[in-house]
Amino acid sequence: MTSSFDFAPLFPAGLPAPSARWTGLAKYSFVGGNNDSEQLPLEGLIEATNSALQKEGRSLATYGLAHGPQGYLPLREFLVAKLKRDAGITCTVDDLMIVSGSLQALDLVNATLLTRGDTVIFEQDSYQGSLTRLARLGVNVVGIPLDKDGMRMDALGATLADLKSRGIRPKYIYTIPTVQNPTGSIMPESRRAELIRLATEYGVPIFEDDCYADLVWSGQRPPALYAMSPNGVIHIGSFSKSIAPALRVGFIVAPWEVMSRMLALKTDAGSGALEQMVLAAYCKPHFASHVPALTKALRTKLDTLMEALNEQFGTAAEFEEPKGGIFLWVKLPDQVDTLKLYQAALAAGVSINPGPEWSTNKSHSSSRLRLCFASPSHQQIREGVAVLAEVCRKEFGVPARSANVEKRA
Amino acid sequence: MTSSFDFAPLFPAGLPAPSARWTGLAKYSFVGGNNDSEQLPLEGLIEATNSALQKEGRSLATYGLAHGPQGYLPLREFLVAKLKRDAGITCTVDDLMIVSGSLQALDLVNATLLTRGDTVIFEQDSYQGSLTRLARLGVNVVGIPLDKDGMRMDALGATLADLKSRGIRPKYIYTIPTVQNPTGSIMPESRRAELIRLATEYGVPIFEDDCYADLVWSGQRPPALYAMSPNGVIHIGSFSKSIAPALRVGFIVAPWEVMSRMLALKTDAGSGALEQMVLAAYCKPHFASHVPALTKALRTKLDTLMEALNEQFGTAAEFEEPKGGIFLWVKLPDQVDTLKLYQAALAAGVSINPGPEWSTNKSHSSSRLRLCFASPSHQQIREGVAVLAEVCRKEFGVPARSANVEKRA
Repeated sequence: MTSSFDFAPLFPAGLPAPSARWTGLAKYSFVGGNNDSEQLPLEGLIEATNSALQKEGRSLATYGLAHGPQGYLPLREFLVAKLKRDAGITCTVDDLMIVSGSLQALDLVNATLLTRGDTVIFEQDSYQGSLTRLARLGVNVVGIPLDKDGMRMDALGATLADLKSRGIRPKYIYTIPTVQNPTGSIMPESRRAELIRLATEYGVPIFEDDCYADLVWSGQRPPALYAMSPNGVIHIGSFSKSIAPALRVGFIVAPWEVMSRMLALKTDAGSGALEQMVLAAYCKPHFASHVPALTKALRTKLDTLMEALNEQFGTAAEFEEPKGGIFLWVKLPDQVDTLKLYQAALAAGVSINPGPEWSTNKSHSSSRLRLCFASPSHQQIREGVAVLAEVCRKEFGVPARSANVEKRA
Repeated sequence: MTSSFDFAPLFPAGLPAPSARWTGLAKYSFVGGNNDSEQLPLEGLIEATNSALQKEGRSLATYGLAHGPQGYLPLREFLVAKLKRDAGITCTVDDLMIVSGSLQALDLVNATLLTRGDTVIFEQDSYQGSLTRLARLGVNVVGIPLDKDGMRMDALGATLADLKSRGIRPKYIYTIPTVQNPTGSIMPESRRAELIRLATEYGVPIFEDDCYADLVWSGQRPPALYAMSPNGVIHIGSFSKSIAPALRVGFIVAPWEVMSRMLALKTDAGSGALEQMVLAAYCKPHFASHVPALTKALRTKLDTLMEALNEQFGTAAEFEEPKGGIFLWVKLPDQVDTLKLYQAALAAGVSINPGPEWSTNKSHSSSRLRLCFASPSHQQIREGVAVLAEVCRKEFGVPARSANVEKRA
């Protein structure tokens, strides 16, 4: 075959654009769900790995450690106890499936329920990875506005009624009720009950993404929607935010009617078994004490970020203090186009998530951005926000003053 | 939501049948790519894990260890050297992508090249996981008969000419040239050259699945097709067969034109990083010495299996001795329907792969079966084959004699 072999005519229509070559993380990286490396429980993970491998390492010679397609049993046992304690969920190991990160959970739920042309309901501002998946699948996403308590039930009720009047039954209502991404809100229990009531009335299942739910400053959270209504809810979670994102381990809790369909679609011969073994060995004794230490550290980084924004942007940067998590959703003045700010900031070594990529409403989100604060150091947060403010001032004339020094626009 | 919530109306058309609940492995399991647990290099893996975590465990706080979407750099560096030494492949770390087992490689290659109604060319007897994927995608599979040296080039040439005359350009030629699954043959270099010539002539890329290529009894193998023609070949491999299947780590070597498209479709935030770290730390010093020890042990199990078949089935079981690998492709007398034998054997505690699930030609394969011999012990192999022969005799009257004892049919 000559060097001129041309694959282009073979690519099917609708393929996403090719990826560019990787050029590394930005110097000041406020994107991605990366965590605080200083809080990674390294000694505990090493000890857990040794213990797990000594005890049953030879079972790595068998796919899935011979624990079946739903994943390593001790990890499912840990999750049964953890979900009961933290989220009020009553389930058994048979209701749980371990997956390769919650992104695989998104793919499995979507493959089980969706086909091109379907409609789903989302929070208006939501996780980019979920939104891009639906765009690729050709699924219509209807966004519901948020307030400080999450998805607005008046708007949801009106949307469900409107869709019904047009003969459309949405395939699911996707929500991140506990530390909403990107707003950081927590839906109160009373609103959860109202959400379940509406979903039941219209016969629409709820897809509950609880990936950030471990990272609540107060340590307290309302019961999961799945806990309140196990039959009509698919619940997903992850160890990415609580332990380490590079370990690709998430999970799904779902009624067997759905689980059995997802299992038929999980044709990957199991998720990584070593990572499951290590997590089970680490989490059983240590999870409950690790998480509060982690959230305490994250909370101090949020404080640094909010201080830096106040100092560098002044009143030009508006935000609600999130109730947990690793990100802050920031509103800049209307003239700031964060898609353009993203490009200019990246050239200056600062990466941000522009609002339109995290929202179903482009005009609402065009001057908003998401800043992740877990991974950069306190110093990087301060320096990065200062660079961002300078870039923003040059591009858009705001903030007019940075760090209390008036600048020429 | 009541307990009566019904998901069934929400499932799209064409969903696979729901999975049954997991009931464990059969007592005598001759299925799946499971390995020999005694050969798992446990001490080496423990040492490698400790070393890797001590050295850079904190980077687990960042997705993909900040090594980018193509995977952990030291593992790609190991693969560059290994592929050069073993398969004659000249490539760089930029030509390589680490994936979650070669099954994800299949999915990515398929998603990049295929759409419903496309045609691909396969070896007539081939890997079930590849065949079932294409059935789900609605892709036509044209099987090419095999001989003791793999895919027959006369038949391939005729098929390519026939398809061209009908205006059909196949999207790829899928081959397992080195330890073919299920036949265990190795395609000689001269035939590889002929395959490349035909593929070039017809403008069809080759999809080379080299998952079993490390397990060659002689330790010698011809150069990979990718080595002979890097521009028109997509090459995939795995650590499942050489180290441990429960570690979900495989890889793809491909031209950037294809790689950049696959990267855009790999939306899983990276494959498991701990497993990549451990493999890199273990393989660099130990891979070259581990593999010969493993293949030596596998070869003794193959001997036990062939002896047991000869003893229990006599001339009723025909097979070519494979040149490597973990499976034996067995022909039973024509009256044996291995799909029925599969059911009866399973009820007796023996699991086998019935031929029709591993072939594009149901009549050719209806009395064939695949037996995997790496995972069961020597004793389990002997006992399991005896049980299988007894079941087969009861169901189909053959073998008439087992273990030199004449039986009443």
